[in-house]
Amino acid sequence: MMNLGIHLIIDAWDCPAELLNDLDAVRQALLEAAEAGGATVIDVCTHQFSPQGVTATATLAESHIAIHTWPEYGYFAADAFFCGAGDPYAALESLRANLQVGNMRTTELKRGIEGMSRPLEL
Amino acid sequence: MMNLGIHLIIDAWDCPAELLNDLDAVRQALLEAAEAGGATVIDVCTHQFSPQGVTATATLAESHIAIHTWPEYGYFAADAFFCGAGDPYAALESLRANLQVGNMRTTELKRGIEGMSRPLEL
Repeated sequence: MMNLGIHLIIDAWDCPAELLNDLDAVRQALLEAAEAGGATVIDVCTHQFSPQGVTATATLAESHIAIHTWPEYGYFAADAFFCGAGDPYAALESLRANLQVGNMRTTELKRGIEGMSRPLEL
Repeated sequence: MMNLGIHLIIDAWDCPAELLNDLDAVRQALLEAAEAGGATVIDVCTHQFSPQGVTATATLAESHIAIHTWPEYGYFAADAFFCGAGDPYAALESLRANLQVGNMRTTELKRGIEGMSRPLEL
């Protein structure tokens, strides 16, 4: 497979509910994760759900990071897709610390084209 | 596992390069995918890269859809994360048609909390 990027899928639980419902805290955790990963932020979108829950997505020059929280379960789902430069694992570690994660499961996916071992001739 | 949503990971190739470099076409494909999936769009962010490539992310009430294109390889990476309502497979089929996908690989991930079979008592 021609590998064009690494996509980390992050399920995290046993996090403080009030933190996961704090839009500013989640936005700040997202921005710090991007910075820790050496990524360039193009735009950020955040949304506060009612009665609870926050979504924050960062569009990056390297692809994206998205966070969706369920405070009622102490859970958030995140993913960090980095192509080219940057270190998604550094972004992950920043998120883990800032959102006070108790337990998590991380899956690394390699993104790209199947059946191709090197770039096309352009 | 307590399942909170379905996250489709989509690698697609053998797509027309000029289509994948057309910001308006990719944005429109994203919006139509969200509509096909029955999702509610909160915000959309798009970016045209130089010399080529487009990123388009939609923040949804149901989570997100993101598309990142590499026209030089006829390739795009997308993901569609739907929690609660909506049908990510309908979004996928819309994307496949609108971006004229020749080949694709799709992975379904169930997102949620390990070791929990039902919601917490709240």
